[in-house]
Amino acid sequence: VRGPSVAELLASYRDGSRSPSAHVATVLETVERRGDDGTWISVDAAAARRRAAELEATPGASDLPLYGVPFAVKDSIDVAGFATTLACPAYAYEPGGTAPAVQRLLDAGAICLGKTNLDQFATGLNGTRTPYTVPRSVFGDDLISGGSSSGSALAVALGEVPFAVATDTAGSGRVPPALNGVLGFKPSRGLLSTVGLVPACRSLDCLSLVAADVDDLRLVLGLMAGVDERDPWSRPRRRRADDPARLRVGLPDEAELSFFGDTAMADAHHAARTAVARAFSTLTPPLAPFLAAGELLYAGPWVAERLVEFGDFLDEHRADVLPVVEQIISGGARFSATDVFRAQYRLAELKAEVARLFETMDVLVLPSVGTTFTVPEVLADPVATNTVLGHYTHFGNLLDLCAVAVPAGTTEDGRPVSLMVLAPALDDDLVLGVAARLLDPLPA
Amino acid sequence: VRGPSVAELLASYRDGSRSPSAHVATVLETVERRGDDGTWISVDAAAARRRAAELEATPGASDLPLYGVPFAVKDSIDVAGFATTLACPAYAYEPGGTAPAVQRLLDAGAICLGKTNLDQFATGLNGTRTPYTVPRSVFGDDLISGGSSSGSALAVALGEVPFAVATDTAGSGRVPPALNGVLGFKPSRGLLSTVGLVPACRSLDCLSLVAADVDDLRLVLGLMAGVDERDPWSRPRRRRADDPARLRVGLPDEAELSFFGDTAMADAHHAARTAVARAFSTLTPPLAPFLAAGELLYAGPWVAERLVEFGDFLDEHRADVLPVVEQIISGGARFSATDVFRAQYRLAELKAEVARLFETMDVLVLPSVGTTFTVPEVLADPVATNTVLGHYTHFGNLLDLCAVAVPAGTTEDGRPVSLMVLAPALDDDLVLGVAARLLDPLPA
Repeated sequence: VRGPSVAELLASYRDGSRSPSAHVATVLETVERRGDDGTWISVDAAAARRRAAELEATPGASDLPLYGVPFAVKDSIDVAGFATTLACPAYAYEPGGTAPAVQRLLDAGAICLGKTNLDQFATGLNGTRTPYTVPRSVFGDDLISGGSSSGSALAVALGEVPFAVATDTAGSGRVPPALNGVLGFKPSRGLLSTVGLVPACRSLDCLSLVAADVDDLRLVLGLMAGVDERDPWSRPRRRRADDPARLRVGLPDEAELSFFGDTAMADAHHAARTAVARAFSTLTPPLAPFLAAGELLYAGPWVAERLVEFGDFLDEHRADVLPVVEQIISGGARFSATDVFRAQYRLAELKAEVARLFETMDVLVLPSVGTTFTVPEVLADPVATNTVLGHYTHFGNLLDLCAVAVPAGTTEDGRPVSLMVLAPALDDDLVLGVAARLLDPLPA
Repeated sequence: VRGPSVAELLASYRDGSRSPSAHVATVLETVERRGDDGTWISVDAAAARRRAAELEATPGASDLPLYGVPFAVKDSIDVAGFATTLACPAYAYEPGGTAPAVQRLLDAGAICLGKTNLDQFATGLNGTRTPYTVPRSVFGDDLISGGSSSGSALAVALGEVPFAVATDTAGSGRVPPALNGVLGFKPSRGLLSTVGLVPACRSLDCLSLVAADVDDLRLVLGLMAGVDERDPWSRPRRRRADDPARLRVGLPDEAELSFFGDTAMADAHHAARTAVARAFSTLTPPLAPFLAAGELLYAGPWVAERLVEFGDFLDEHRADVLPVVEQIISGGARFSATDVFRAQYRLAELKAEVARLFETMDVLVLPSVGTTFTVPEVLADPVATNTVLGHYTHFGNLLDLCAVAVPAGTTEDGRPVSLMVLAPALDDDLVLGVAARLLDPLPA
């Protein structure tokens, strides 16, 4: 079920085969027909119809780069007119305005349909940690959607919107796209303003994008990116147009990869790697320093950042928070200042080691996830399954990398396969270029 | 009492008016004649004489850039053949080797005379926190030497060595030179390898240099700097040769400066500023974000970094540590992980604000210290006086700046005055260029 891309929508608006109002109406019908599938927390159908009509009535609006393009926003990011819930109704508030990065999309003519489901407080990679309907992957069979940006991935995978705004701290912007057969792009931290985002780990968070088309990612990145003085981690984009064919691609020894007993996934990844090796010049970097950084994240003191944000709320509303989420966030209290500095020293060593690896390779290609889970499997063992899901994503922001999860077919038994392309911060153009080549092995 | 500069020494070796052996003998006599003045913790006269003789006997050695030049090393940095004490005899150990940045000086023909006194564990800016003899400033009248690099500043100010290796975490490499009428240069963090340095705050520490001559600083920086894979904060130097006359120099409003009731110092600083304003194009940046970062350091969780390094030692040797130092370091235990992340968020905001200020100015010029103290004054109130001494230095490493303290005459009542020139990281050439112009207002 692939929906139209931005370019296809704009072309159809131009040739009259569609109009924003008609398209919005079609999408809203689809959403309504599906009923509550756990994708959306809030949809404002009336506002979307009104906005489409206003755009159609505004002279010159049809020249806007996202004229009449519907999109979705993860419900941890403020959009005026929608409550921000973080999938915790007791936490919900009416925002005073729209996050500036999202405002840039509205200013470009896009139409926000609503806010999407997430693992509560963006704490989770599996999609089951929500008091709303628990979403399922578009691949069916009770497969989890992945999280925390579950609804944003689904809205794209279901063809309802060409792109959705999500977030990524430990993999939240890559795991759900990987489990739903779409692209999950985590730009370099600081390119997209995080003002108006309720933080998970403020030092690691970034906005991310879900789409079905690399050109849509490029277009939306270009519109959203911009230095914001109110975001202390904000930094300017760096353009880098390399010939993808000349890139040096790191593919770690398969013996270093973990598929957690999922031989079908291992086989599918092996096939996908082989295609990568045909398209690019490759080398074999060690995976250990990346995984060591990932372990620092899920076993280390960064969870205390969640306590900084939600500690006061937890103290007053403990019963309103899902037990697994409450337990994880409260765990931040066990870490001392010396624990943080010790972990940051170790991280500095790993960052230096990884920087040296990236002197000899341009991008690293890994599985996005090592295996998949069903909803009952995750509910039976919510922490261990979640850790497995983040095996290849936990280290991304800690090591200040950019990354994109790219669909790479299915396993023999029909589950989604995804490759993740990683590069040092500010090499966003590079990972998108590799993603495009992987999706279209014979570019013009 | 100014000793010969490196250039003067080398010239005298070349023209035969001095030899390394003869010069070393002269210096050792001076040191011996002064007796235990608190400058040195250890001097190995025999080794220095032997080394001078060896250099003289080595063909080609006289072409080395520091041939036969004696120098001193702060006793928190390993030099083979000398115990590393950190001014705590119970902590002392025999190092397995020489810190690589110091080894580069030895490889360049320099002669390490010995290890210099410091505030214990490099914890202090005043120079009185030592179980060895408490040093005094060369300006006399019971004036403190400043710390923690007290002995390194004195060895230069007494003319015993043309340069000394020191360290700077919160001002330890700038306050003692400021109180002894010499130059204190804190390069950008990462230019000089910190391998072989016992850390104070590992995320902030850097090696620093004391000298009486800007050209000596430039020469020694050039020899010592170099990327070291064993130092995770290591980074390469950046050359920037701007015309000092065209630099935009920030001089904050004098109403924002604090002299703690020291009107003679305020007057002297006013006169020094006036000279700066005649030599450069100036502007008036706010000082508040810099001072706010400084407050984060002395009131915030970074003290826990000292506990990371010395906590185990303190647990077993509490009675062997000076009470004021023990109290400060133990204070790190009161900070939680959330305290660290909160402080780092605030620091990120201040760093962003300061980066914007440096878009409109090249360097900032401040007093190095706002006032001076006598040894009895510091002993009577060791913490408050120390905080006053760091008023203009605490923020330097937190904000990732480079800095040099430059002698600027004396107060009416004969105490040392010093200007501090600060710039963003990697603009080391810039601050040294300004220092040179301030010392020689009519350059060729």
